[in-house]
Amino acid sequence: MELLFLGTSAGVPTRGRNVSATALLPANRKGWCLVDCGEGTQHQVLRTPLSLHDLDAVFITHVHGDHCFGLPGLFSSAGMSGRTRPLKLVAPAALEPWLAMTLEVSHSTLPFEVEFQAVESFGGVAVAEWSVTTLALSHRVPCWAYVFTEAKPEPRLDVQRLAAEGIPRGALWGQLAQGQTVVWQGRLLQGNDYRLAGRMAQRVVICGDNDTPALLREACGQAQVLVHEATYTQSVLEAGKQGYGHSSAQAVARMAEQAGLANLVLTHFSPRYQAAGGSGASIDDIRQEAAAAYRGRLWLARDLAHYRLARNGLLEAVAPPPG
Amino acid sequence: MELLFLGTSAGVPTRGRNVSATALLPANRKGWCLVDCGEGTQHQVLRTPLSLHDLDAVFITHVHGDHCFGLPGLFSSAGMSGRTRPLKLVAPAALEPWLAMTLEVSHSTLPFEVEFQAVESFGGVAVAEWSVTTLALSHRVPCWAYVFTEAKPEPRLDVQRLAAEGIPRGALWGQLAQGQTVVWQGRLLQGNDYRLAGRMAQRVVICGDNDTPALLREACGQAQVLVHEATYTQSVLEAGKQGYGHSSAQAVARMAEQAGLANLVLTHFSPRYQAAGGSGASIDDIRQEAAAAYRGRLWLARDLAHYRLARNGLLEAVAPPPG
Repeated sequence: MELLFLGTSAGVPTRGRNVSATALLPANRKGWCLVDCGEGTQHQVLRTPLSLHDLDAVFITHVHGDHCFGLPGLFSSAGMSGRTRPLKLVAPAALEPWLAMTLEVSHSTLPFEVEFQAVESFGGVAVAEWSVTTLALSHRVPCWAYVFTEAKPEPRLDVQRLAAEGIPRGALWGQLAQGQTVVWQGRLLQGNDYRLAGRMAQRVVICGDNDTPALLREACGQAQVLVHEATYTQSVLEAGKQGYGHSSAQAVARMAEQAGLANLVLTHFSPRYQAAGGSGASIDDIRQEAAAAYRGRLWLARDLAHYRLARNGLLEAVAPPPG
Repeated sequence: MELLFLGTSAGVPTRGRNVSATALLPANRKGWCLVDCGEGTQHQVLRTPLSLHDLDAVFITHVHGDHCFGLPGLFSSAGMSGRTRPLKLVAPAALEPWLAMTLEVSHSTLPFEVEFQAVESFGGVAVAEWSVTTLALSHRVPCWAYVFTEAKPEPRLDVQRLAAEGIPRGALWGQLAQGQTVVWQGRLLQGNDYRLAGRMAQRVVICGDNDTPALLREACGQAQVLVHEATYTQSVLEAGKQGYGHSSAQAVARMAEQAGLANLVLTHFSPRYQAAGGSGASIDDIRQEAAAAYRGRLWLARDLAHYRLARNGLLEAVAPPPG
């Protein structure tokens, strides 16, 4: 699977970083998911090969504006471009009436259905090649991480079961291998029932804002990639007394190290951290602090940074972001 | 006064043009006004010398999302950057409860007051160096133009009145000349009462979406600049049967020509019109159609285009937009 970062700034946009949004693409790049949708996310999509027609589902981590104010515009633009396919939206319950009111007030009629599921009562969902579940985080408002697990990676036919049920070799097996539904002797056969995972499922955890990295400890033991905020360095967080419900790079890196995580991607940086080479606090301060505590593969996301999780479980850059 | 275009695309953003927003700056560049605030307007402000702290008032022409979805984010960011000065907002009444709900749902507490006035019952307001009034337009939803008229351009002292009231020459006159309020012999003297306009007031009309340019005919006879949408060329508008409540470049240009308008700025172009040199419909189609019908100074706005209305009533480019 692949990660494409659409926004990596905390709270407010900067000239170089938009507010939160992360795209997740399956290996075949058919369909994609979006985690968070800050203002201007649809603008960022225009700078990528992604299409709003192929978007399968949107997951919102919490109600703060820098994580959801882009929803009405993104939905409206998808509608104006002629999308009719239903779209899944998993988000805090309070956002459903807000979205409805926003579309009504602006006389926006969507030509597609938004299948809303409240994250508070969310039992998981199958989207593209993943099953998606949640983890509760700790922030100033209720906040969640979304856990994407490959449902049946590189599926192969369950030959044993096919033989046991007497299903004859041939075109039928081929259809089932592709996951199709076929009728045989009056029975409805679901391809997925006759497929087995060809290798261990990969897992990516994409977090919202969180001041307690330890909440991710167990999940990190079973995941290849953690995407987590690192809004501040430790000294700045301590000077701010409370950190406004956020984590330092150090705290996240220490937890990831203890969990034996292979790939850590930090994002959601306070605008105070500028590109290296300036006079003030630098994004390199975040990098150095995290690198000192974590020996796995460490990435600091930039807008339009694009990564692929390889079969060997290592995250690699697909292409450097422009500029 | 000066115009700085922050968004010039109709309906949806493109890679080169954001949705609607136009900044108006007084000659001294102290304070500014914003007409419309589509999604991503705060991002565009970051690409200009404008500051959200200096913003005096926001005027919204109508409820469509590409003209107002940027309000919550712009207000939130102004708050996070520490703005405390009240901000005027003139907009359709329906947007007041929407804005309140949006800020509540997202737990956004603004550290400044939003002084809301419904445009439906708007009686005009004094902002910076202007008095601002409205004109009703014709669109799929109620829509307005905002008319900015210099209140007292290049003011000079009303020496006759000062003499008649026996106010003695000296420091007192200097204070009144600057518009200050002073106490003299127990009387409160308002500087503005002792100032006269030094030249004729200039007027700029900034429109929302509108399918009936004739509604602007009278106002254009008394204004130096009209900013109006030209969403389509005439042939495309006619092929679309109704134009969705929009105007063609030709219709706007003809009206401006009949009104004897000195400066016409077109904006709000359908994304179908690409930069010249491509294979499809070109923004030059809009330009050629308008130029064929209008002999005054014609401008097609681009994002970040910056114009100044000179003392001679002619609009001139301050600096070409980057890129």
